[in-house]
Amino acid sequence: MNLILLFKEDYIEPGVVRLGGRRMTHIKKVHRAGVGDMLTVGMINGDMGSARVLETAPGYVDMAVILDTPSPAPLPLTLVLALPRPKMLRRILQTVASLGVKEIYLINTWRVEKSFWSSALLEPDRLENELVLGLEQSRDTVMPKVHLRRLFKPFVTRELPEIIQGKMAFTAHPGPWDVCPRSVSKPCVLAMGPEGGFIEREVATFLDIGFKTVSLGERILRLETAVPYIISRLY
Amino acid sequence: MNLILLFKEDYIEPGVVRLGGRRMTHIKKVHRAGVGDMLTVGMINGDMGSARVLETAPGYVDMAVILDTPSPAPLPLTLVLALPRPKMLRRILQTVASLGVKEIYLINTWRVEKSFWSSALLEPDRLENELVLGLEQSRDTVMPKVHLRRLFKPFVTRELPEIIQGKMAFTAHPGPWDVCPRSVSKPCVLAMGPEGGFIEREVATFLDIGFKTVSLGERILRLETAVPYIISRLY
Repeated sequence: MNLILLFKEDYIEPGVVRLGGRRMTHIKKVHRAGVGDMLTVGMINGDMGSARVLETAPGYVDMAVILDTPSPAPLPLTLVLALPRPKMLRRILQTVASLGVKEIYLINTWRVEKSFWSSALLEPDRLENELVLGLEQSRDTVMPKVHLRRLFKPFVTRELPEIIQGKMAFTAHPGPWDVCPRSVSKPCVLAMGPEGGFIEREVATFLDIGFKTVSLGERILRLETAVPYIISRLY
Repeated sequence: MNLILLFKEDYIEPGVVRLGGRRMTHIKKVHRAGVGDMLTVGMINGDMGSARVLETAPGYVDMAVILDTPSPAPLPLTLVLALPRPKMLRRILQTVASLGVKEIYLINTWRVEKSFWSSALLEPDRLENELVLGLEQSRDTVMPKVHLRRLFKPFVTRELPEIIQGKMAFTAHPGPWDVCPRSVSKPCVLAMGPEGGFIEREVATFLDIGFKTVSLGERILRLETAVPYIISRLY
């Protein structure tokens, strides 16, 4: 937690927040902060700044907050990910939030196991919890939006063509394609497959609506390695 | 497992291997391979190729092996990592092996918890197990070398100056430094700190022997995200 994320409900008076639970424990146990110590904070979807500890009690920590710094620029990237298995999903959500991705579509594909869609992790609160951890890690405040799309064909053929308007669109897929370009620095949409990859018909569907199929080189990387790897190439 | 890694001991006659344990289970349960099916294989520290299933029995699978393809070029990168906590170490070893890193120094720094050095994961067999998983993921055969260095100062001041001879050397450290350069494509040594980072004195020690301090931008990334991110920038 390199930044403590604050929410409206945390304010007990103008400029003063009271934190309990996970954030309080972190402030006390990891930062070992006492009265007068300064911590980095950020308002959800707002500015970042610093907080001075006013009081620590068994059940809470009070801090005086000054928000005076804009959060880092968002990454102009929309990620379209085949829904990963729950354990992987947790890490991926944290990872993409920490990298500054703000639009994430989790979609069904042929090789996504049906059971993944009934994971409790897909409930809005649980998704948000993982995203918060990513924002706190990288010092960002802007909550990413996660969209769930359980039907591949309607999403890709009806919704996705609008999403890619004015953007470059890539499907990352192992094979003899051009390697993903470097330093594109423009708005992009990036589609990445599940364990085992997209099936050829899915790759063709993306191609039909204007995606370029690209590889990451000879090596086949796990999703959680491939995501930072390809984002670092694009931006 | 996108490649099944073979060892000398697997051969029961020239060109024929017999696999049991984890690899056999994977071939039967995940690949669902039967007699005649072809699988991608690679000889440890040797060539890659294909194997045809000859026989499956309750305790083993026999395959006829042809090795005819060189493994991917190694990454000309030496990684110097502050020893991460064991849970993180497992994933990091798999990740760096999958990315093609072949030289890894795990070192002590001020903020490395002493208890991490007594993890059973640091035993040679256990290290190798994790590295094998990374090689199998990315389709590589060349086993990375992991060097353990429990004393920061002697390592950095005596051994590291020789290691960086003829290479570019970078310390990744959050701060107002130049961002890590792109597409260096030369042999590099990259030092990365523990959770909480290197202390300033450590950064200065690296600087003294010729390392350039670089940042990854405004965001602070977890080690397992930062490693693929920075490798993708450098190569």
